[in-house]
Amino acid sequence: MFRTAELGQSVAKQDFKKRGLDLRQRLLEAQILLSRSAKFNVMIDFAGVDGAGKGSTVNLLHAWLDTRLLTTNAYGPLTDSERERPAYWRFWRALAPKGRTCLNLSGRYSTPFLDRVYERTSAKEYVAQLKRIQAFERALADDGTLVLKFWMHLSREGQEERLKALEADPEQAWRVTKKDWEHWEIYDRFIETAERTVTETNTDYAPWHIVEGSDSNYRMLEVSRIILEALEARLASAGVSASPDLLIDKEAFDMPDELPPRPEGLVTVLSTLDMSPALPKSRYREKLAKQQRRIHLLQRDALKKKRSSILVFEGPDAAGKGGVIRRIIPTLDARNYRVLQYGAPTDEERAHHYLWRFWRHLARSGRLTIFDRSWYGRVLVERVEGLATNEEWRRAYAEINDFEDQFIEYGTILVKIWLHVTPEEQFARFESRKKIPHKRWKLTSEDWRNRAKWYAYEEAAHDMVKYTSTHMAPWELVPANNKNFARIKVLETFGDMLEKALQEG
Amino acid sequence: MFRTAELGQSVAKQDFKKRGLDLRQRLLEAQILLSRSAKFNVMIDFAGVDGAGKGSTVNLLHAWLDTRLLTTNAYGPLTDSERERPAYWRFWRALAPKGRTCLNLSGRYSTPFLDRVYERTSAKEYVAQLKRIQAFERALADDGTLVLKFWMHLSREGQEERLKALEADPEQAWRVTKKDWEHWEIYDRFIETAERTVTETNTDYAPWHIVEGSDSNYRMLEVSRIILEALEARLASAGVSASPDLLIDKEAFDMPDELPPRPEGLVTVLSTLDMSPALPKSRYREKLAKQQRRIHLLQRDALKKKRSSILVFEGPDAAGKGGVIRRIIPTLDARNYRVLQYGAPTDEERAHHYLWRFWRHLARSGRLTIFDRSWYGRVLVERVEGLATNEEWRRAYAEINDFEDQFIEYGTILVKIWLHVTPEEQFARFESRKKIPHKRWKLTSEDWRNRAKWYAYEEAAHDMVKYTSTHMAPWELVPANNKNFARIKVLETFGDMLEKALQEG
Repeated sequence: MFRTAELGQSVAKQDFKKRGLDLRQRLLEAQILLSRSAKFNVMIDFAGVDGAGKGSTVNLLHAWLDTRLLTTNAYGPLTDSERERPAYWRFWRALAPKGRTCLNLSGRYSTPFLDRVYERTSAKEYVAQLKRIQAFERALADDGTLVLKFWMHLSREGQEERLKALEADPEQAWRVTKKDWEHWEIYDRFIETAERTVTETNTDYAPWHIVEGSDSNYRMLEVSRIILEALEARLASAGVSASPDLLIDKEAFDMPDELPPRPEGLVTVLSTLDMSPALPKSRYREKLAKQQRRIHLLQRDALKKKRSSILVFEGPDAAGKGGVIRRIIPTLDARNYRVLQYGAPTDEERAHHYLWRFWRHLARSGRLTIFDRSWYGRVLVERVEGLATNEEWRRAYAEINDFEDQFIEYGTILVKIWLHVTPEEQFARFESRKKIPHKRWKLTSEDWRNRAKWYAYEEAAHDMVKYTSTHMAPWELVPANNKNFARIKVLETFGDMLEKALQEG
Repeated sequence: MFRTAELGQSVAKQDFKKRGLDLRQRLLEAQILLSRSAKFNVMIDFAGVDGAGKGSTVNLLHAWLDTRLLTTNAYGPLTDSERERPAYWRFWRALAPKGRTCLNLSGRYSTPFLDRVYERTSAKEYVAQLKRIQAFERALADDGTLVLKFWMHLSREGQEERLKALEADPEQAWRVTKKDWEHWEIYDRFIETAERTVTETNTDYAPWHIVEGSDSNYRMLEVSRIILEALEARLASAGVSASPDLLIDKEAFDMPDELPPRPEGLVTVLSTLDMSPALPKSRYREKLAKQQRRIHLLQRDALKKKRSSILVFEGPDAAGKGGVIRRIIPTLDARNYRVLQYGAPTDEERAHHYLWRFWRHLARSGRLTIFDRSWYGRVLVERVEGLATNEEWRRAYAEINDFEDQFIEYGTILVKIWLHVTPEEQFARFESRKKIPHKRWKLTSEDWRNRAKWYAYEEAAHDMVKYTSTHMAPWELVPANNKNFARIKVLETFGDMLEKALQEG
């Protein structure tokens, strides 16, 4: 059954660029529609032959899409908390809520599958395990979850080639483990079990898609196309595609600019920031490649040494936080980082201390967590909008310092970035969002309302820096009128702090 | 400073009964007011000398109060998930939401305290650790949390006596560990550090209360009195005590009984249940003591063997679920069980599959979880009230069977109880709730509305039994017109199933 995925299909670079751009744009829109309508959730599994690109496809999906709306669950050995519950506890807990997508690597198929390949379980036991998987998938699908499963395939020769090629590359060699070669040795048994697995669990509610994995361009386009088609079809049947209103905030297109005049005598750390630095495109490209490579290696080292890091981004709307984050994540493995964005608190969060919702999502050791806005909301938006009382936001500085101290003591590498743009630059970016079709969904009336309070925010940011830029956790204020400069500056800062912390032990 | 808690204070049984009844009643009301207003949460810590009754006070509080609104956090050695986060992660995660109370045993004071007693840390390090504790308590108190801390004290001689007395009792001897005697050996150093600790962390926002622990009646009254006073004062200052409307649902007192006539030909497992069994009070008392002792021993064994159990209660309003649960919990250690009640789902829960909210709260191995209503809501209230579609509740039988299969496979002991009363008996109980002052808060207009749909519920219950009373997880239908009979029947059933499962291994 896997023959159809041994045809040597590939896609040339130029084709990939062109078709990729279109697919990516449509996928992104579908993802935003999914998020804003929150009608159902999506669960996508990647399984298959080692070296067939499961991990790199997942990584590329994060780079293409809005990574804040994705979660990758990579299941390692059971933790002791997991051992103390029925096996599916870990899978149930990790489900995405409606509006979001989770990508699974080494998920519910992995252990039963390998147990069967190595004959640790009987054929009969395996059938029972597959039945359990089906019941799980069926329950989710019945509840509206869009379930997609990809089997990434390589021929025996293809796998050998791929593993050898990885080993030959000094920077990739670490990816190949002894286990990979062990699996290769028993390729035929592996494939036999795979056929059985795919056949038995290929249902209408949770179909398998077999994808030839030898060419990275081909497999990415294939996977994206399949996801897009399924997602668009499901959105349509949920009545979502018919409402572009979800995608575009029309009000935002007609709102007047209500930026007040700058209050006399207002001098802040932001008004005195040198906003002139810029970087020409040619030097940017070269520096970007260098910094991305550096962070890739440092982050690998951090994982090995179990050093977590936290990257906090704050700054005005349209300062380019998303763009910076998109330059960082291609250097990372989606298994080991998460980008979190905190909107309005849920009702459970509202019933707790405001720091609770940050504590509850702390990642395990060695991971990177990127906060696209953070606990500083307490002293920024909550202060300015009157959502926190005077007393509340004033005492928050000390609470936040104490909170961050605890990470630093634990050994977490904490990097806090304020990306800054001038009001003029923000205006230009808002206007350009109106004009560029694939950026229109980004502009919201909230952006304009925040802009009208520019100087209140500037004052709040000034106080925030004053009270929370500590020796151990300083704020890095990054002038971001020039995107190239800002991106490199953030990558350098993050790299420097990682490097320093890892050298110190 | 602990001299004041070495006066040999005690309370005679008769006094305890009288004062206890009053305190308990007021505490319960305050707890209901707290829950219904949800203005703040409560965190109560118990620390002190081994044998001074920390655990048994916590157990008694659970028996006195509405245990569904309490959580006890007992902190053992770090799990591997906890080791991978800063130390306070476990404390932040375990905080009660507004409206609820958490009781901490061996909490944030324990490790720093013992490290200092055993001189594993310097005096300076200890001060820094106490500062961290204070910052935590302060942040919570500032956010509105009522923080209370009890130091349970025994004199050196008192502690020796207590440990020896426990050892002399064959049923309690296991409670005394080598560590207890080690602590006793260094009593003076222990007390010196305790004095330091209490002094340094006795703040207005998180005060310590030193309680003499030698007499169990005295300490329980003391602790209850202090909690009650603090809680009533805080409720008053939050403007809650002034609104008895919160406590009593006035509408429920004037609603007509709209029980329809029994549909002709309706024959169900409930209509054919023999409702006559009863048990005279004298035999009840004797049997109750016997069954409670038995469950106590079995549950201890289950914990040792890491066998979890789940007790599910369903049945009409006023069937006596709460009363049965209150007869079970005095036999248990509050560290090892939880009573969960599921109301309307939170918004996070609504964004997931309906079973998610049960999966997410699964307890660790060896624990007992009591569900006061459960996932069966899907095929009962959600079916009857039209909250689930026909398709949804129909497929739920299979989903629930699969869900329960997973527990049973894992080794969890699952006991499902339907407590049944006749409509006549329910009516009598509703009416008596109107008349008995300390039961008035229990009657709600919802009760009357549910009653009007009695036969729809009866049909739903019939189908539920038909489709989910499996060989491995049968429903036990308990006639509960006679409370004594029902209570004993449930305890016997639970005991039998525990015993059988533990014998089988």
